[in-house]
Amino acid sequence: MTGSRVLNRALRSKIMSASEAAALIPAGSNVGMSGFTGSGYPKEVPAALAERINALHADGFDFKISVWTGASTAPELDGALAAVDGIEMRLPYQSDPACRARINAGQMDYIDIHLSHVAQFVWFGFFGKLDVAVVEVAGILEDGRLVPATSIGNNKTWLDQADKIILEVNNRINPAMEGMHDIYYGTALPPHRKPIPLVTPSDRIGEPYFRCDPSKIIGIVETHAYDRNSAFTPPDETSRLIAGHILEFLAHEVKKGRMPENLLPLQSGVGNTANAVMAGLEQGQFENLTAYTEVLQDGMLHLLKRGKMNFASATAFSLSPEAVDDFNRDVDFYRERVVLRPQEISNHPEVIRRLGVIAMNGMIEADIYGNVNSTHIRGSSIMNGIGGSGDFARNAYLSFFMTPSTAKNGQLSCIVPMVSHVDHTEHDVQVIVTEQGLADLRGLTPKQRAKVIIQNCSHPSYRAALQAYYERALRESPGRHTPHMLNEAFSFIQSWKAEKAAMEVEKAIHSGLAATKVPA
Amino acid sequence: MTGSRVLNRALRSKIMSASEAAALIPAGSNVGMSGFTGSGYPKEVPAALAERINALHADGFDFKISVWTGASTAPELDGALAAVDGIEMRLPYQSDPACRARINAGQMDYIDIHLSHVAQFVWFGFFGKLDVAVVEVAGILEDGRLVPATSIGNNKTWLDQADKIILEVNNRINPAMEGMHDIYYGTALPPHRKPIPLVTPSDRIGEPYFRCDPSKIIGIVETHAYDRNSAFTPPDETSRLIAGHILEFLAHEVKKGRMPENLLPLQSGVGNTANAVMAGLEQGQFENLTAYTEVLQDGMLHLLKRGKMNFASATAFSLSPEAVDDFNRDVDFYRERVVLRPQEISNHPEVIRRLGVIAMNGMIEADIYGNVNSTHIRGSSIMNGIGGSGDFARNAYLSFFMTPSTAKNGQLSCIVPMVSHVDHTEHDVQVIVTEQGLADLRGLTPKQRAKVIIQNCSHPSYRAALQAYYERALRESPGRHTPHMLNEAFSFIQSWKAEKAAMEVEKAIHSGLAATKVPA
Repeated sequence: MTGSRVLNRALRSKIMSASEAAALIPAGSNVGMSGFTGSGYPKEVPAALAERINALHADGFDFKISVWTGASTAPELDGALAAVDGIEMRLPYQSDPACRARINAGQMDYIDIHLSHVAQFVWFGFFGKLDVAVVEVAGILEDGRLVPATSIGNNKTWLDQADKIILEVNNRINPAMEGMHDIYYGTALPPHRKPIPLVTPSDRIGEPYFRCDPSKIIGIVETHAYDRNSAFTPPDETSRLIAGHILEFLAHEVKKGRMPENLLPLQSGVGNTANAVMAGLEQGQFENLTAYTEVLQDGMLHLLKRGKMNFASATAFSLSPEAVDDFNRDVDFYRERVVLRPQEISNHPEVIRRLGVIAMNGMIEADIYGNVNSTHIRGSSIMNGIGGSGDFARNAYLSFFMTPSTAKNGQLSCIVPMVSHVDHTEHDVQVIVTEQGLADLRGLTPKQRAKVIIQNCSHPSYRAALQAYYERALRESPGRHTPHMLNEAFSFIQSWKAEKAAMEVEKAIHSGLAATKVPA
Repeated sequence: MTGSRVLNRALRSKIMSASEAAALIPAGSNVGMSGFTGSGYPKEVPAALAERINALHADGFDFKISVWTGASTAPELDGALAAVDGIEMRLPYQSDPACRARINAGQMDYIDIHLSHVAQFVWFGFFGKLDVAVVEVAGILEDGRLVPATSIGNNKTWLDQADKIILEVNNRINPAMEGMHDIYYGTALPPHRKPIPLVTPSDRIGEPYFRCDPSKIIGIVETHAYDRNSAFTPPDETSRLIAGHILEFLAHEVKKGRMPENLLPLQSGVGNTANAVMAGLEQGQFENLTAYTEVLQDGMLHLLKRGKMNFASATAFSLSPEAVDDFNRDVDFYRERVVLRPQEISNHPEVIRRLGVIAMNGMIEADIYGNVNSTHIRGSSIMNGIGGSGDFARNAYLSFFMTPSTAKNGQLSCIVPMVSHVDHTEHDVQVIVTEQGLADLRGLTPKQRAKVIIQNCSHPSYRAALQAYYERALRESPGRHTPHMLNEAFSFIQSWKAEKAAMEVEKAIHSGLAATKVPA
């Protein structure tokens, strides 16, 4: 593809500026935007829309839209629109500091739902009508089909469901990615659903292009911009320790005959710890690995490159600039070993359970009975969202939740008597890991879980206090199945030291400085 | 079948008394027993074992076993063994007063897991070795295959996984049930799993008999006893109101085009409210209904009989004595319209999501943000267990959770600021229903949910207090996404009146008088 990537002649008449396209989005509309973990989001129209909104607000007009995406996007989208107070409601996952601040100030509505639920709820009509889709693509074929970009997310659903479509055709995207995508068109509404015919991560069950009704396209904007591509941070000591515990445990499970020698397909959240696990696998004993995950980070590309991993299925990339360079250099190599799918397939309970995925996700805190909080600070402020962690944890063969044992330089314990918000219940959490150690909760009762979590996972400076809570609860609790003293259950969060630290976390959230631990 | 139902000649030599069979169960063993919601449990061996344990305890010997079942059983099993302190650990669901008392006194271990997870976790080896299976069947064919009884539960897995098998052949079971069961033998361990080829509730994908390695059978006991068959209680006014709200809502969804005119396959928990919904459907507008559920109660048989429902798939019956009589009279009619499956299939996320099930489950309490507690009193005492409610709620097309708005004659509000135990998170709860009204939470943010739950579902005598909590939290909460004051979040549970009522609930639990609201 040289020159314009809009190969369909009829559609060339729709090419316009970002401002012209932004002007076509009505106030109050529901807008489905592309974007997943900072890749494949529209680069220019949201910013142009933000500018328009800002001007209208200055003139005293109301103007907000609701923004539906795949997952988190970038400052050019969530950041720009939140900055001008242009978002009425946002779903399903975000990690933008400006968004987060508005949500927690009560100025923006946010619905936090399982990523696998989004597309089907839109098809079911549960969120109302999708008015406009704004989707980044890598090109438009002569016959009008679309070449997907660096993430798929919910784009198929946005294109199918929206009344009107605005496309951003980004010619920065490596044209050799063509053929790497697999868009499944076999979904249906109940009672007409059929089995999804995917039995290994490398199966292709769809088409490499999006279908798109050309009569719905109201604007095409040609862009030339990279994804946000955050820099890669080498794993720190804490992450390396967490990764070490996980790898040791996996080796133990293989030895016990509970897992094949090449493990089972890996799912890994984003961030430092996830990359540390990948780095550990790069050095480790396991061969012929596969991944069935949401997001491909640097670590998985390394595994593919080193020949440790044979194939990776995801819905999006989230790469460092160096990894992007490597990817573009060896795109022919990667195209044979990577497939990007719609997130309703990458996160589908049916497929995750069938494949027997090994799920590894970050969390904010766990309690001594194995309930996990992935989303809230002090039960009230949202960090990012649950993302796909629930899709994977509930349906995985084996599910890890990991966190450093403390936050805020040791001022907060990430193991607490009772989490202040539950995203993953005691019924869904199998293994908890901190740099201190690993708690294998499979087949344990609540009281047995408490013992191993406190002993293996809590930081030594909080261990005695947790143990004291547990032992006193064992004596004073009205029931002894899950011993609790409800009037003290949040004491860790409410103690003076913790209170101060939590306020700092919240200040950091509001100013956008807090590190993101939860996967997209 | 006349005379002995043990048609395999070689196996006749294994016929023995219940005491002789009970003597073959070693101390400390893991025993997989049949039984689901009071049907299909072994009638004599557990009681004989309890007698043996009691005698051994009297002589100063230790003797306990771990008991794995399908779900709840009956006094002859859970009750008898708990009464003599014979159970070390119990999974995955129980509703027996003696069991419950021991668990909450800290004298018995209990693991509460999703019903769909049980079989696969045993196959994965997560609970250790299954030593003995004790399974009730309706007969043994000449070739050694087994005719299943009135529930399937985890029996296939117990028979496949146990080292040794004791069969109870119950000749009270209507022999004409033969052919009503569908045992799926297509499961496998990852990475060898394939799609489950079930696309409508009436599909048969397996065989009507259990396969069974005869060399593992160490004892056969011939019995002649009915299932526990609780009496049918006509719906009370509260249940009728709840049912009315649900039926009105379903009609509304059909009118909006979000559901077919014959709805989608129904799942319904057990109990009064569930029967009230069925009674409402019997009078209502919907035709050609189907069910894909765990348990068939009287209400569904009525729907089949009246021609309102075409087909019902379940894993167990739970009938009144009158319904049993009706069933036996018209067994040929019902055999064409009912199938019993293993619970790993009846509760499988893949199938539930594919079919688009309408899930209706009871709960203990909900909070104003839509989190649901299905299992615990005051965060610490177990009531029954989560059962299959998580399998269905997470994967359903539409999921209802229902409860009267108050418990203990109005002394406890079942709508609270924060639930003391979370079994279903805000991400998994779509519709909450009490006799006061219905809250449709689809597409709502936490604050929007709080408004409709308080307004529509809470009892008028608690509404102002809930509203006051919410409004004050909105001002004082550190974050305003999910406004909470953690130091007051459990105030409803801890207030004097509530405290007193909760203690009564616990006393009732211990004495076995508490009504069971949560489905098996």
